[in-house]
Amino acid sequence: MAATTPILIVVTGGTFDKDYDELRGTLDFRSTHVPQMLALGRCRLEVEVRTVRLMDSLDMSEDDRLAIALECAAGAFERVVVTHGTDTMIETAAVVARRLAGLGRTVVFTGALIPFAFGSSDGLFNLGSALSFVQALPAGVYVAMNGRCFAWNDCRKNRELGIFEPLS
Amino acid sequence: MAATTPILIVVTGGTFDKDYDELRGTLDFRSTHVPQMLALGRCRLEVEVRTVRLMDSLDMSEDDRLAIALECAAGAFERVVVTHGTDTMIETAAVVARRLAGLGRTVVFTGALIPFAFGSSDGLFNLGSALSFVQALPAGVYVAMNGRCFAWNDCRKNRELGIFEPLS
Amino acid sequence: MAATTPILIVVTGGTFDKDYDELRGTLDFRSTHVPQMLALGRCRLEVEVRTVRLMDSLDMSEDDRLAIALECAAGAFERVVVTHGTDTMIETAAVVARRLAGLGRTVVFTGALIPFAFGSSDGLFNLGSALSFVQALPAGVYVAMNGRCFAWNDCRKNRELGIFEPLS
Amino acid sequence: MAATTPILIVVTGGTFDKDYDELRGTLDFRSTHVPQMLALGRCRLEVEVRTVRLMDSLDMSEDDRLAIALECAAGAFERVVVTHGTDTMIETAAVVARRLAGLGRTVVFTGALIPFAFGSSDGLFNLGSALSFVQALPAGVYVAMNGRCFAWNDCRKNRELGIFEPLS
Repeated sequence: MAATTPILIVVTGGTFDKDYDELRGTLDFRSTHVPQMLALGRCRLEVEVRTVRLMDSLDMSEDDRLAIALECAAGAFERVVVTHGTDTMIETAAVVARRLAGLGRTVVFTGALIPFAFGSSDGLFNLGSALSFVQALPAGVYVAMNGRCFAWNDCRKNRELGIFEPLS
Repeated sequence: MAATTPILIVVTGGTFDKDYDELRGTLDFRSTHVPQMLALGRCRLEVEVRTVRLMDSLDMSEDDRLAIALECAAGAFERVVVTHGTDTMIETAAVVARRLAGLGRTVVFTGALIPFAFGSSDGLFNLGSALSFVQALPAGVYVAMNGRCFAWNDCRKNRELGIFEPLS
Repeated sequence: MAATTPILIVVTGGTFDKDYDELRGTLDFRSTHVPQMLALGRCRLEVEVRTVRLMDSLDMSEDDRLAIALECAAGAFERVVVTHGTDTMIETAAVVARRLAGLGRTVVFTGALIPFAFGSSDGLFNLGSALSFVQALPAGVYVAMNGRCFAWNDCRKNRELGIFEPLS
Repeated sequence: MAATTPILIVVTGGTFDKDYDELRGTLDFRSTHVPQMLALGRCRLEVEVRTVRLMDSLDMSEDDRLAIALECAAGAFERVVVTHGTDTMIETAAVVARRLAGLGRTVVFTGALIPFAFGSSDGLFNLGSALSFVQALPAGVYVAMNGRCFAWNDCRKNRELGIFEPLS
């Protein structure tokens, strides 16, 4: 039940990777925390981490989403996890789903509400969840948040509660 | 793909739940950290947490393992996660597998190498992983560690490396 | 050498007390972390914590600084620690120094570069430092940052390095 | 009021520096966390860190205490902080006080109830406190714990509460 082929992790930024700039007192991006999180989780999966973007998903253009989709389609990976800001995660998932139609890949999007760098993050839990769902689920594009997993076109972010929930 | 019925979480202790006794300078158990970890992970699964034991798995007797198996079989839960010390996790999984044969339940064991209370724990990653595998996998008894998932009778703990690996 | 009278802690906000708003993805203030930090430090000093402001020190008006100075002068406290944003800490210290001239009080300002809520904060170190200097130093107004302590009118914040340094 | 000469930090182990051995599930010592703690505290004092022992203070012999005292007396340092297990901190302070009598040095012992590596430590608070008291106090041997500072021969560890308190 474990993937025997490597898993691609496509990093795009989002709250997952936000840092605190102590000279300016603001939030910023520097580099992804995903390798550190995999080490912390004692993860022994064969993974390849590729940073495509490091940005707030509210600032993403269609070009950004296309670049992410192309990365998800690249190489010989059957299983892909995408770390992404939660605000437009579903929009990007839609672009990826169209672009990868027929390729037979399992793609799982995940994110975080709290930056990993801030010590009390949901990101580590979500990364463990996404890496598990991606191994176990059939081809398709999914969103793994809050311990749950949804088809990309059957969920939405509830902005009042900060959680993902099914449409249906 | 998400479980629509509640998931039972059977707590037995292990490194997951070790605390530091600051008056004695030793490791001990007080109460489980699982609810706090679920809150940290912003988990929105319907779960029921039952603490059956809070002990080092090296100290478990056959009676302890039987009590755990009985808890896994109780109620109407189709999906069960067991948090357990890694040293004898597979022995308990064997008892559970025998006891639950034919019940059609999916049971996933998980644990941690570092206590959650010590701030840099693999436990949060593993809990996210186990709760995901338990939703996605068919009936059976499994071990989810290091981002991977094994059939209970096809893995072992490599004590030199502190990781789980397949027998085959 | 330990103060036998209670120490007043005047909270004004600053990076010390910044939180992360997970619904908006921005930094905000909610309530002070000082009592939690005192508990974490196993502090057994007799202290009284009064929250006068919870704000970014760049947004402080002269009225804000006056309110802080009045609080520092209130009651029968001989020793006062003020937690404050680092950007205008010295401006407020100047107002406090004028207002408290002749009162014979020891006042120590401190702050943080990283929010305490973000897990890897200098705030706990600085709080320990400020509470110690305030017990040991004679009457006057001081700034305790980076393990050092300066007379309020003999230091500046080096904004490139994010540290405090002597003028002379 | 800040030391203009370097401060010597003598590391002897104690809870401060305990680590968790994830292969054995036990507490051990590896190397001191003091440099990491100084970096976290954004400490800008000129310090020299010397590791003399890395041990539980309950296991210390008179030879260990003598070696620590010799280190405190070495070099040209006027100000010395000693990190030490809390259980026999006062015994070692007595040896140091005898050995350094007449040298005119200020020596401050400190420790922790919770290991720094376990994420929620009083050690960072205590280190900030000890480094501040050592700059501000006259020659003598002191214990800085719980935000307070005691003459070495006027305090004891209350083992029921896990705090230091004055004899008198």
